Amino acid sequence: MRAAVFAEPGKIEIVDRPDPQIVNPTDAVVRVVLACVCGSDMWFYRGQTPYEAGRPVGHEFIAVVEDTGAEVRALHKGDVVIAPFAYSDGTCPHCRAGITTACLHGGFWAYGGMDGGQGEAVRVPFADATLVRIPGSGHSDEMMRSLLSLSDVMGTGHHAAVSAGVKAGATVAVVGDGAVGLSGVLAAARIGADRVIALSRHEDRQRLARDFGATDIVAERGEEATAAVMDLTAGVGADAVLECVGTDQSMQTAFAIARPGAMVGYVGVPHGVEVPLQSMFFRNVGMHGGSAPVRTYIPELMEDVLAGRIDPGRVFDFETDLDGIQEAYAAMDERRAIKSLVRVGTL
Amino acid sequence: MRAAVFAEPGKIEIVDRPDPQIVNPTDAVVRVVLACVCGSDMWFYRGQTPYEAGRPVGHEFIAVVEDTGAEVRALHKGDVVIAPFAYSDGTCPHCRAGITTACLHGGFWAYGGMDGGQGEAVRVPFADATLVRIPGSGHSDEMMRSLLSLSDVMGTGHHAAVSAGVKAGATVAVVGDGAVGLSGVLAAARIGADRVIALSRHEDRQRLARDFGATDIVAERGEEATAAVMDLTAGVGADAVLECVGTDQSMQTAFAIARPGAMVGYVGVPHGVEVPLQSMFFRNVGMHGGSAPVRTYIPELMEDVLAGRIDPGRVFDFETDLDGIQEAYAAMDERRAIKSLVRVGTL
Repeated sequence: MRAAVFAEPGKIEIVDRPDPQIVNPTDAVVRVVLACVCGSDMWFYRGQTPYEAGRPVGHEFIAVVEDTGAEVRALHKGDVVIAPFAYSDGTCPHCRAGITTACLHGGFWAYGGMDGGQGEAVRVPFADATLVRIPGSGHSDEMMRSLLSLSDVMGTGHHAAVSAGVKAGATVAVVGDGAVGLSGVLAAARIGADRVIALSRHEDRQRLARDFGATDIVAERGEEATAAVMDLTAGVGADAVLECVGTDQSMQTAFAIARPGAMVGYVGVPHGVEVPLQSMFFRNVGMHGGSAPVRTYIPELMEDVLAGRIDPGRVFDFETDLDGIQEAYAAMDERRAIKSLVRVGTL
Repeated sequence: MRAAVFAEPGKIEIVDRPDPQIVNPTDAVVRVVLACVCGSDMWFYRGQTPYEAGRPVGHEFIAVVEDTGAEVRALHKGDVVIAPFAYSDGTCPHCRAGITTACLHGGFWAYGGMDGGQGEAVRVPFADATLVRIPGSGHSDEMMRSLLSLSDVMGTGHHAAVSAGVKAGATVAVVGDGAVGLSGVLAAARIGADRVIALSRHEDRQRLARDFGATDIVAERGEEATAAVMDLTAGVGADAVLECVGTDQSMQTAFAIARPGAMVGYVGVPHGVEVPLQSMFFRNVGMHGGSAPVRTYIPELMEDVLAGRIDPGRVFDFETDLDGIQEAYAAMDERRAIKSLVRVGTL
């Protein structure tokens, strides 16, 4: 099969890799239809985190089941499925508690010999537990794009909202206007936030944020952003804050704009962050979040996508095919794209 | 009036201070009956935090209302009241959200010219909002001690449990066996935790922890404590962790024994703590807590004290009067006492 692999910083290439085969009886082999590039893929692409040459890439995909192991019960050849960005057994204590990204036997695509999502086929462990079948057929391309976003960004934005304790009627602030931040805006609005303040500097992203439910836009950064949010909230701060970047500045802003007693739901992998512990203590501002257990969220979010209530696929503003994978990365690296869609196969 | 003041590290003395008078129409002047010494008082007593010579001390007390300002409605001369460790106006957005320790117009006893609780009388701002009247009369000394604990330690232990998201049926671990940690054990059991693992090295405190509802005791520290809790929870970790110390070691232990997805409820003022952010992210372990809004909790906790369902006053294992204040501090400093009660006046 053909699959994208990392060559060197700034270079992703298509190579031939062995066709995946069933190894364990709980495996499925799936043929990838839609994949995409993640903001987190930029780290190795930019050489900011180590990545071996020749290692596959990609962790978000929609696929068709091609083959199933003897113990796979819920899935059959031809089923169209969403793969969350991590696989999980569904039975360990952490999976049963909904934290599938901490599965005792789980792992991540393209790690430890696993196939990547940006390739023609993938061996999926614990297929029944990992994959979610998309009911029905003939879904529009727009809907398929929204379903693809449930692989990661929409589930991650939702996790930020859940971790921040967003409730109906709340005033929510979202730090970050990448695909995850925008998904966080949509997630907060979906839960019923009365007011969603999006911190965004880019006009096109501000527009999408408004379409997703943002009621206010703050274009400032740092202390000016804090002042703007405080001004918008009569000096009180936000009831819940979604931190969707992971830098020290964005995290400091998130804590500063949270009202006393509030939670910061954070899903940006922290890089060089110093947590303002004294201020958190005396203001009773907490933090919760991390690697989103999107598998847990896919069913409820899929229901809303299929009903047309949310359209998170609008974060994809660039598309190509497997041969264009280099450009899919470059467009995001150069911030020409919020998120790149990669058409790998057909249904 | 006679009141305790800080003289120098290791020395608390009784001096004459002006009798408190009504200043604002929302003030009350109260005559202190019972006071106590807090673990946090040890910081200035030991010279670990700066404190001016001659400044009053103490922030936990039960008192009798002596005089009220023209706008005080709910309280009358002769009422017996519990004072939380912070005063608050009850009307600002943070008070209305229950975070009374972040009151826009509130503050702390013995700060900024306020009287301290370890003295014969106190001027209380926003008396209607700050003080909680104890209904009935003729309560036993045991019950009065339990009511006094609602000024701080029991409310603070409860705040740790609430911040950690303790639910009925949960497995809870409590780090710290001081008065707050023991109160946290009681709070977790009160909420209905199925299992309460108390991390305690002292036999007398282990006994009280068991009386308060601890089902398991872990006497180890550091990595051995983590291993012991993991062993007790079949490798899963605790559903909720109460951190009631504030040192780096206790905080690291708290995060290490929390199961993925769990919260650490922390109420020990952090000293030299480095938050394990990467591990928190990848295990989805959050933290929430801080300066406890005990005013918010007093009514519900008082109901349980008056009904005899909880007896948090058992944390007082040393008592004296105002003349013995030096010994009240020394007993805690030398760890001869968990918590010192100070009898200041009579009902």
